[in-house]
Amino acid sequence: MSSKNYTRTRWDVQASDIARKTHNPIRSIVENIVIEPNPNKNMIALSIGYQEAREAVAEYSSNEFVKVDPNDVILCSGCSCALDLCITALARPGQNILIPRPGFSIYRTLAEGLGITVRSYNLRPDSGWKIDLDDLESKIDETTAAIVINNPSNPCGSVFDRDHLLDILDIAARYYVPIIADEIYEHMVFPGRTFWSLASLSKEVPILSCSGLTKRFLVPGWRMGWITIHDRQNILDREVRKGLLSLSQRIIGSNTIVQGALPAILSKTPQKFYDDVIHTLYTQSKLAYKCIIKVPGLKPIMPDGAMYMMVYIDLGCFPEFKTELEFVQCLLMEESVFCLPGQCFDYPSYMRMVITVPEDMLQEACLRINDFCERHHCKTSHEIIRNSLRRVEIPY
Amino acid sequence: MSSKNYTRTRWDVQASDIARKTHNPIRSIVENIVIEPNPNKNMIALSIGYQEAREAVAEYSSNEFVKVDPNDVILCSGCSCALDLCITALARPGQNILIPRPGFSIYRTLAEGLGITVRSYNLRPDSGWKIDLDDLESKIDETTAAIVINNPSNPCGSVFDRDHLLDILDIAARYYVPIIADEIYEHMVFPGRTFWSLASLSKEVPILSCSGLTKRFLVPGWRMGWITIHDRQNILDREVRKGLLSLSQRIIGSNTIVQGALPAILSKTPQKFYDDVIHTLYTQSKLAYKCIIKVPGLKPIMPDGAMYMMVYIDLGCFPEFKTELEFVQCLLMEESVFCLPGQCFDYPSYMRMVITVPEDMLQEACLRINDFCERHHCKTSHEIIRNSLRRVEIPY
Repeated sequence: MSSKNYTRTRWDVQASDIARKTHNPIRSIVENIVIEPNPNKNMIALSIGYQEAREAVAEYSSNEFVKVDPNDVILCSGCSCALDLCITALARPGQNILIPRPGFSIYRTLAEGLGITVRSYNLRPDSGWKIDLDDLESKIDETTAAIVINNPSNPCGSVFDRDHLLDILDIAARYYVPIIADEIYEHMVFPGRTFWSLASLSKEVPILSCSGLTKRFLVPGWRMGWITIHDRQNILDREVRKGLLSLSQRIIGSNTIVQGALPAILSKTPQKFYDDVIHTLYTQSKLAYKCIIKVPGLKPIMPDGAMYMMVYIDLGCFPEFKTELEFVQCLLMEESVFCLPGQCFDYPSYMRMVITVPEDMLQEACLRINDFCERHHCKTSHEIIRNSLRRVEIPY
Repeated sequence: MSSKNYTRTRWDVQASDIARKTHNPIRSIVENIVIEPNPNKNMIALSIGYQEAREAVAEYSSNEFVKVDPNDVILCSGCSCALDLCITALARPGQNILIPRPGFSIYRTLAEGLGITVRSYNLRPDSGWKIDLDDLESKIDETTAAIVINNPSNPCGSVFDRDHLLDILDIAARYYVPIIADEIYEHMVFPGRTFWSLASLSKEVPILSCSGLTKRFLVPGWRMGWITIHDRQNILDREVRKGLLSLSQRIIGSNTIVQGALPAILSKTPQKFYDDVIHTLYTQSKLAYKCIIKVPGLKPIMPDGAMYMMVYIDLGCFPEFKTELEFVQCLLMEESVFCLPGQCFDYPSYMRMVITVPEDMLQEACLRINDFCERHHCKTSHEIIRNSLRRVEIPY
């Protein structure tokens, strides 16, 4: 779009109709009772004690650049649920949100179900999966309700540097569009790289940051996620903050077993645990990269963080397969190795490898991928056939 | 409405737009890969193993009257999430669902957020909170997408008998409206009563039954719920079943810690545990009833199951309080006892007591409620004042 015709000249972020219409009478009645119980009589009541868990997340998410208040924390049943709340609260049918390509499919799934359009902006494989900023800017129009930024990235394993994040914030500020920051892989960055949260750099743009336990603490399926609201200019105070709270009351909350453990998990996990995880991921990324770079017809892109590696499949070398989906299906059938096809991330011709499996298994998987590609590659496979013909000395 | 003008003459249950538009590419690509891995090579993949938990729920929910297949089970993050999926899948903006009054507020919260109208049908306090069937029938029209039946009931603690459930099914069948059965309190019935699931009695009406671990197993906050789909005439096969599955893929699933434990919990819990819970609830209900029936200005309604008791507050006797909300607020302030006001359940002039607190605490709470009512009752309070005047011998 041409920025000349853009009419937003100030921040005016509204809540969606769903957020406005959602109302939980029990929660609002109970939470509005400001009366103190009689201090001389012990209290008899059933209560919901989320406060400690929220305080723990606030402390965990605060640092020298950003201070999070427990009131800025919304606990969710996993990070997907956090993303669901943010998208549902900010965007309404007919509006659009901008999402990365390649990117995790959940943004599209959540938005399109609600009649919200998604527009993909491109990441550039040739420059460490940085955002194509011109492309991003060209996708913004009057009906853009939010920009989703995923950093570090699934499936790319990329980590944006400070300057790139400032450039992104500059665009969001110029067009008055809030950002949903999917930062579930925060701190999962390899040596030499630094993770910067968008909230720590934003002076003006409201950031809804989504994170959780799953990735850094290696507890998939615990369903413990959260939103932290960062809004230095109080742009979300008028509608969106209330909308997020209303939506969070559609269900009662996240699993209380994990909630109870949260303060200890966040404050008492020794640094060595984090370091060991990073060390393992980094070592295994290098291992996988070193193997796959030698495989005929494949081109891996070395990640900077997270737990994935994107691999380009030169389908011209594998004429048997029309798409990368056929490639990964045949790989599964013949080698019992399963990688997600790029079309899961709106990015054909690639596949995503998970690098968290145990090292010997990762090594074995790389060997099998190599065998598979040598067998099916149009050049090497001819050679193999030629070789085997020579060996078996077929009698004609 | 007059049934003369009713035009539905056959079952035609459609999925909502949200359900139709929700699409998770990873799940659909992965679940559509029918290729078997190479049996001679051990599988290298990350997989999501919900099958065992679904099998456990299917077995737990089957009995001599109803057989549940694992494919009829959808695991959810708590029963509220199960209800959310059912309402979201069946109804669309502009349509309506019928809900009980008094009733749990979640149905309204979930529906109204999505622009779905709720229409309340009345329960009758004078006949064990049975549904006023004429009222129910009068609320059905062409835009009725589902009837929500909550049995046993929160907040009433009522348990419907077989004949009443058959009458309900008859109405649903005549108007071709599917039922969402909130049966989270299934089996929590007092001696002499029997729980019948709607699914066990329905020959034709599709039933989406929602239940979970929380209540019967006394594990609030574990967030483990499920939907079982009962559809003997395959009415939901065309759209709704697929819609429910799509919606369940908006998030990844329920907490895996609890999911892993589910088969053991459901199959190995000794009968004594269930019996003890029922015994305790029944004993405490009787205790609370016996105390509250004597309190001036209050009228409790003895429950048949679940964990609640509704208490009528004759506000005419308490002129200080304009509403039952003011009554419970003052009770909290003076006696540190907290009951939910009836307006949380769309039912003013009542309050809901929870009867699960330890026996001595329940006894203490009843005593305090009694003190409070004696103090504030327009008749007894005059007597008290007269008595105290006599005692202190005020000098004028």
